[in-house]
Amino acid sequence: MSKQTGVGEYLINRLYDLGVRHVFGVPGDYALSFFKELEKSRLELINTCDEQGAGFAADAYARVKGLGVVCITYGVGGLKVTNTTAQAFAEKSPVVVISGAPGMKERVKNPLLHHKVRDFDTQLKVFRELTIDSALIDDPETAAPEIDRVLNSAIKYKRPVYIELPRDIVSLPVKPHKAARREPLASEADVLEEALGEAVAIINKSRKPVIIAGVEIHRFGLQDKLLQLLDKTNIPLATTILGKSVISETHPLCMGVYEGAMGREAVRKYAESSDSMILLGTFMTDVNLGIYTANINRAHSICATSEGIAIRHHTYEDIGIHDFMDGLLNEGIKRRKTTEIPHPPIPKRPKPMKGKKISVGYVFNTLNSYLGEKTVVIADPGDAMLGALDMVIQMETEFLCPAYYCSLGFAVPASLGVQAARPDLRPLVLVGDGAFQMTGMELSTIARFGQNPIVVVFNNEGYGTERPMIDGTFNDIHPWSHSRIPGVLNRGVGFDINTEDELQQALATAVKDTKNFYILDVHLHKADRSEVHKRLTSALSKRVK
Amino acid sequence: MSKQTGVGEYLINRLYDLGVRHVFGVPGDYALSFFKELEKSRLELINTCDEQGAGFAADAYARVKGLGVVCITYGVGGLKVTNTTAQAFAEKSPVVVISGAPGMKERVKNPLLHHKVRDFDTQLKVFRELTIDSALIDDPETAAPEIDRVLNSAIKYKRPVYIELPRDIVSLPVKPHKAARREPLASEADVLEEALGEAVAIINKSRKPVIIAGVEIHRFGLQDKLLQLLDKTNIPLATTILGKSVISETHPLCMGVYEGAMGREAVRKYAESSDSMILLGTFMTDVNLGIYTANINRAHSICATSEGIAIRHHTYEDIGIHDFMDGLLNEGIKRRKTTEIPHPPIPKRPKPMKGKKISVGYVFNTLNSYLGEKTVVIADPGDAMLGALDMVIQMETEFLCPAYYCSLGFAVPASLGVQAARPDLRPLVLVGDGAFQMTGMELSTIARFGQNPIVVVFNNEGYGTERPMIDGTFNDIHPWSHSRIPGVLNRGVGFDINTEDELQQALATAVKDTKNFYILDVHLHKADRSEVHKRLTSALSKRVK
Repeated sequence: MSKQTGVGEYLINRLYDLGVRHVFGVPGDYALSFFKELEKSRLELINTCDEQGAGFAADAYARVKGLGVVCITYGVGGLKVTNTTAQAFAEKSPVVVISGAPGMKERVKNPLLHHKVRDFDTQLKVFRELTIDSALIDDPETAAPEIDRVLNSAIKYKRPVYIELPRDIVSLPVKPHKAARREPLASEADVLEEALGEAVAIINKSRKPVIIAGVEIHRFGLQDKLLQLLDKTNIPLATTILGKSVISETHPLCMGVYEGAMGREAVRKYAESSDSMILLGTFMTDVNLGIYTANINRAHSICATSEGIAIRHHTYEDIGIHDFMDGLLNEGIKRRKTTEIPHPPIPKRPKPMKGKKISVGYVFNTLNSYLGEKTVVIADPGDAMLGALDMVIQMETEFLCPAYYCSLGFAVPASLGVQAARPDLRPLVLVGDGAFQMTGMELSTIARFGQNPIVVVFNNEGYGTERPMIDGTFNDIHPWSHSRIPGVLNRGVGFDINTEDELQQALATAVKDTKNFYILDVHLHKADRSEVHKRLTSALSKRVK
Repeated sequence: MSKQTGVGEYLINRLYDLGVRHVFGVPGDYALSFFKELEKSRLELINTCDEQGAGFAADAYARVKGLGVVCITYGVGGLKVTNTTAQAFAEKSPVVVISGAPGMKERVKNPLLHHKVRDFDTQLKVFRELTIDSALIDDPETAAPEIDRVLNSAIKYKRPVYIELPRDIVSLPVKPHKAARREPLASEADVLEEALGEAVAIINKSRKPVIIAGVEIHRFGLQDKLLQLLDKTNIPLATTILGKSVISETHPLCMGVYEGAMGREAVRKYAESSDSMILLGTFMTDVNLGIYTANINRAHSICATSEGIAIRHHTYEDIGIHDFMDGLLNEGIKRRKTTEIPHPPIPKRPKPMKGKKISVGYVFNTLNSYLGEKTVVIADPGDAMLGALDMVIQMETEFLCPAYYCSLGFAVPASLGVQAARPDLRPLVLVGDGAFQMTGMELSTIARFGQNPIVVVFNNEGYGTERPMIDGTFNDIHPWSHSRIPGVLNRGVGFDINTEDELQQALATAVKDTKNFYILDVHLHKADRSEVHKRLTSALSKRVK
């Protein structure tokens, strides 16, 4: 490393080394010096309309690429990405938040500079609550090790981190520094041996083991190990909602998503009749487990996550999930005979009835029949996400949704992030009309960077998922003519869809034309709901009785 | 109060008593029970597209009405209004943030509920950094005094506060409670006497006193006292940027805005040649004082704010600004003879040259000539705000801009808040094209509630205020055809404006039609700037030399 490397350049080089190629953000005066460095660098900057869009895009990029970056200015920028950072924290997405800030020399005597809230460290304090590690880079002498520590934390824990860059630090030369070795999460050998011994014994004694795979399989790069485990043991697998597509759902051992009473009944029966449920990298959250309709018998379960291992009712700490999975692979789990399992059904493309009013069910069946190896499905919380759970994803990591934290407005900006990371994929974006009003205008950024998602707006005149809970005029929204948005953006193609044949025609056109983004405004009946949503409502009402 | 009053109802009644009539927000499941209470109540709910819009609207409402409320759900809602709350904190706008939250019973054993970040109190901790007071209402026994305390803090300090309402608390009956008396900020009598004696002596001894009025004059309800002081003493007055329009700018003693080298030279000369500058309720911030081009001689200044009094180089604490102003009124400040002062010039409506390319200067001169007693000007940070500083506001509190914290995207949602509070006024919204992309689609809410602002988009192809600092492609944005947005919203009227005559025609039409909102997309030259911006750039470049 040259002696002349500045602090900003050092940070950019480290991000590049870690695989980052794009940065999402909105400039502001305290961040301009770093934006200038970005412009000169090998990283591509993607300016969004609002910082919120940049935050969601960086989160999605991180989910696909392993690390994402959002870069914004102090206060008015940083405090606009608190929610997106919170989502990344909750769902273990390693996002680096880089905030410009007033220069250290400007802070002397604590003047009232613009964009300041209470004290100069207010924003830093807020981000300490929302990230796994953070640093104010206030000294070029220590900048390099500070930056390394924080970036390593993002990689190690798969959580967001925060770096605050005062504007007068960016171009100062960093002190030469020996990059710290990334420490692996070491397991305690004795603890590991005992846990593995117990786990293998339970699995081998069981009649009907089943694996439930969660999103950490993807986050911690364990997909290959999981596939080897399936190959070796022939044990069938389902995923959680967040874990959907950690392996291809067309894999012969894959049953699709296990989500309690929200999911397909056959998967639920298979999983819940198992006498050894092996949960790997699974968040035990409410939505992820079908709003607690999942019936997991802890007396028969083995649960391994990055935070520890639980077998039956006891827990082991200080074991890495990597080591535990290696152990399962190597410790003689016996191979099972092939059994009958409920594969997720791929529907044939339904024939349209000309002029027949479109329904949620018809939309999902049709979209499902269009999925290919080059389609990535991105679903916004709400019925767009619930309905999508029944879709069959053909390749790894080609389904994204924030199924735990559930922040509306994720999907459109997430598409931006996904397609930056994987230009070979075409996003199919599923979003409710309520969520679209939050961030949908990031289609502007999609237009600017020439991306080509197909965006399906489930237009049911408001917050449809809330209506069965408590309804009122507060769940209504102002109607938008979404198909006219391409006219505002001078790019893209819009369709209004009221009937089955209109949907088929629009999709046929959209699939053929890879040069444009498409927005399909699907006008649904206000009370129409997906099959998954109906199953959930029915199960919850039974529980109340 | 009936024994049956629930916690939610109690909070609503207290807000009503404090003058609140509208609540801005977006529902979410943890907040639905409170939204249902709101629907039943005397308060009107205004649903915005995104929580950010609700936050800005509530801030603007608070600036006009004395108290504003934003109501959102936990996590995905609350963390979207951190930035708007920070702005309200920085600029002393009393906004009550009410967040729904998981029920207290749901929190037992710390399960992974959706919308949770790290711990159940993460959001509360974040808002402690951004508000002056906060409470988690976890017990109906103490709910009433807790709510009272927090609301009183908002009123007393004119800063935002945070109330977290777990969803299982909303309908529980509050314990009857004697409402706490609001304590006035009491001054120490001896301190007050000494400070007043010194101030009055300085003022009476001076040859050329001048008053600089800041935004606290409005926030703390001191406008009448200030007018009395002018009447009695005949001392001329200028305001800061944030304080613009604390009194009508057509008042015979008003010189307009004093903003260092950014402002009109005659005002600067008058103010800076004064031998007694009386600053009342003024924030000494960078932008507010012309990016530090203001030259305030502390040896001749008296500065009174809600946080203390400074005279020359020493400070007095424990004095309320109310008491200090009462003292100035009653302690025999002598009346001055009328002198020549530089009144702000109201330009005649400029004649349009048919086909002549529109310029920033022409736009502001024209708009200025349209201002009437029923126009409220709302300016977004950037050149829209800078240019607006030269406009002459005819009534009190009819100019709003976030001149200290400077969060882009304020103006459109602020218009929503202002017109809810003051339906008799018609907003003239001035916003840059960059800022418009952040929150401009809140025009949807404006359409839904039948409001009629005239929105002028200063379309100069990006972040024009940043270009003179450091320019790059990061300051460019994707072009929108703003005039087509009414087509998306099925309401409102759009105009594309390239020439002087087009502007005159569009304004004439918009002013006549009070039934619709108007959006005027003014296509400016990329390098064109307002007079204020030019003065600022010129002053800063002189300082560098």
